[in-house]
Amino acid sequence: MVPHLVTALTGPINELEQRILESTPVIERWFRLEWMEHTPPFYSSVDVRNAGFKLAPVDTNLYPGAWNHLTPEMMPLAVQAAMAAIEKICPEAKNLLLVPENRTDIFYLANLAQLQRIFYQAGLNVRLGSLSNDIKAPTTFDLPGGESVMLEPLIRSKRRLGLKHFDPCTILLNNDLSAGAPGILEDLHEQYLLPPLHAGWGIRRKSNHFKAYEEVAKRFGKLLGMDPWLITPMFNQCGAVNFAEQSGLECLRSNTDALLARVRRKYKEYGINEKPFVVIKADNSHAALGQLTVRDAKELDDAWFHARAKATAGHAIGEVIIQEGVLTNERINAAVAEPVVYMMDRYVVGGFYRVHADRSTDESLAAPGASFVPLAFEQSAQLPQPGMKPGASVPNRFYMYGVIGRLAMLSAAYELEATDPDAESYD
Amino acid sequence: MVPHLVTALTGPINELEQRILESTPVIERWFRLEWMEHTPPFYSSVDVRNAGFKLAPVDTNLYPGAWNHLTPEMMPLAVQAAMAAIEKICPEAKNLLLVPENRTDIFYLANLAQLQRIFYQAGLNVRLGSLSNDIKAPTTFDLPGGESVMLEPLIRSKRRLGLKHFDPCTILLNNDLSAGAPGILEDLHEQYLLPPLHAGWGIRRKSNHFKAYEEVAKRFGKLLGMDPWLITPMFNQCGAVNFAEQSGLECLRSNTDALLARVRRKYKEYGINEKPFVVIKADNSHAALGQLTVRDAKELDDAWFHARAKATAGHAIGEVIIQEGVLTNERINAAVAEPVVYMMDRYVVGGFYRVHADRSTDESLAAPGASFVPLAFEQSAQLPQPGMKPGASVPNRFYMYGVIGRLAMLSAAYELEATDPDAESYD
Repeated sequence: MVPHLVTALTGPINELEQRILESTPVIERWFRLEWMEHTPPFYSSVDVRNAGFKLAPVDTNLYPGAWNHLTPEMMPLAVQAAMAAIEKICPEAKNLLLVPENRTDIFYLANLAQLQRIFYQAGLNVRLGSLSNDIKAPTTFDLPGGESVMLEPLIRSKRRLGLKHFDPCTILLNNDLSAGAPGILEDLHEQYLLPPLHAGWGIRRKSNHFKAYEEVAKRFGKLLGMDPWLITPMFNQCGAVNFAEQSGLECLRSNTDALLARVRRKYKEYGINEKPFVVIKADNSHAALGQLTVRDAKELDDAWFHARAKATAGHAIGEVIIQEGVLTNERINAAVAEPVVYMMDRYVVGGFYRVHADRSTDESLAAPGASFVPLAFEQSAQLPQPGMKPGASVPNRFYMYGVIGRLAMLSAAYELEATDPDAESYD
Repeated sequence: MVPHLVTALTGPINELEQRILESTPVIERWFRLEWMEHTPPFYSSVDVRNAGFKLAPVDTNLYPGAWNHLTPEMMPLAVQAAMAAIEKICPEAKNLLLVPENRTDIFYLANLAQLQRIFYQAGLNVRLGSLSNDIKAPTTFDLPGGESVMLEPLIRSKRRLGLKHFDPCTILLNNDLSAGAPGILEDLHEQYLLPPLHAGWGIRRKSNHFKAYEEVAKRFGKLLGMDPWLITPMFNQCGAVNFAEQSGLECLRSNTDALLARVRRKYKEYGINEKPFVVIKADNSHAALGQLTVRDAKELDDAWFHARAKATAGHAIGEVIIQEGVLTNERINAAVAEPVVYMMDRYVVGGFYRVHADRSTDESLAAPGASFVPLAFEQSAQLPQPGMKPGASVPNRFYMYGVIGRLAMLSAAYELEATDPDAESYD
């Protein structure tokens, strides 16, 4: 299920990893049964942090970009998964409309070209409809490799959204709607709009996601007979924090303190000799507030912290999530690295490492200056190994990342069900 | 959908290939709609011959072996497809019973180890139950790479088939049942038996398959606006031929003559300057009669032909199919080669070249002395090409093999529906 990719891990396989690898059939069957009851998000990417003693998702993106960082070898997997997804939604579809972010930098355009390629190969005519007011006519952007991407203005009729001479069955958003859903996307009852509008960051909350993840991890932990904390980032939340007006800081202080204490107890229980830390971030967006690493609640009173918060928040922020920090002990060429797992429908289709040379193991790497290192396929997967025990083969260390990625993705499915404004209530 | 593999083709893309490549979204959508109405075989492999001017399947195997010749990079594709197949059949399954051929040579055992690996990674406990009387207790066979394969005796209860302490939901045959279905596999109404018993060579007929293929190719040709002959091997059949008793030879002569004349007309129509030939083979098995290449009906009267027929047939043969011979113009290191396309459920998951140094372009390569060359993934698929037109990229020349393979696989689905003894009749 999960492609065998070369991870940066080189040390011995620890207990957690061993448990997950040994339980493959049990884990895959469990996911199979989950997907009978729950619909996976159309596509997703999950940032995973591996501290060695613990392995947890820290962010789940339902509008993944950077598909261009997947290697060519992974394309057939993505295409196959895209076919499975399309078959379920709209098998008779000819056309797919992709609605991107309002970005035209070459990195993002390369991502769009890759998505277009995937869905073309899956059997769809794919065109790009922009929400930007700058796109008033079909506009072609050239990419360095010789490829090009054409953005076209969206055309909305009373009941449908499309382009000139292009009426899609499905509309796929690659735009996280941070500013809320624009009217042009509302009331499209005749077409499939994916992900649904309530998955946009205007409505979505990280705390809902990680609450769902806690439940999923608890059941998964029970399945494997292990402490769910080993795969779960604990968190607290505060409703209204404003650094400019200095309001809500008491909530932030007390929750940071309480969470650090909980982490400390867990570290003690497992004999972990590391300094606990938490990460403070906005509950409703992945970008508005930079992620602030805090090792002691007292830091919240530092002038330095406030300066940082204001600088990265940009404006007064509202709801805040305080998340247990998970160290990453992976490195590529001495730079701190964290894996990002890419999924299409229920399938893991690839991944890459996000690498940041200027960050330490307890800081967010999703920051300017980050680079991406594609994960290559493990070439030696089935070659004989000298001295290998019969029946043994090189373990797929990417497998556990694929499991954690899918647990987060399953949690997103639960989260979207729980937050669906159109859900029928059976109370 | 179809992995981008390096083919032996290096010449310019011809008209047929161009037509197929350009029609990707139309073709994929057509397959999508077909799969809404028809169930693909659980797994299959198709021998394809590419004459340049024409491209056609010559054999469709519903119990494919040689999975070990797929490269490690293709495993995730196979696993993903296996997951999709299992989900549809028996999502709550824990156990899969694989019933192999009665062969214990290392080549075949390596195939079994690979199948076991695929279904393990798809989330199933896989064990092997042998039909052979030689396996009276669990028996382990070591493979050169350090792996091993364990064959166990089958245990049949009144209603179910299994092994000691192993009760499977699904039984997967990797045994083509040439000698007919053994009683131990009959009346298993509580378990899924795949492929169904009437797919075995004891019952299956090549002529039924290629009749179904003619229909499928006719509709596909209409879709793409092309002559279906360009992708179809024409055929005739004879009911009872016996070389030992010299009976049925008149039918063979007249049908060979008639078919050669049809091929000649087609060659003339397209200005093809090659010598037509036909291939004579048993209608009900892929192995009992070696494949005999005939370039003139007069050859059938040669003592030499009869010696060959008797030598390869082994015994008196019955029904015979006379199939238009398709040249293969692909070569690997000067040896004649033909691609074999592997599919799991509706997905193309890989392929390899069958290569035979001692055979010519109009002979069967599926003969002792054949070797296998795995198809590697095209590494340059998405790299910039100097002087490339915007929007262009290296074409996936394996794509057309994947299309032809799937047309044959779809034909097998039609064939199995038409020959199902348990099908309800609506006449």
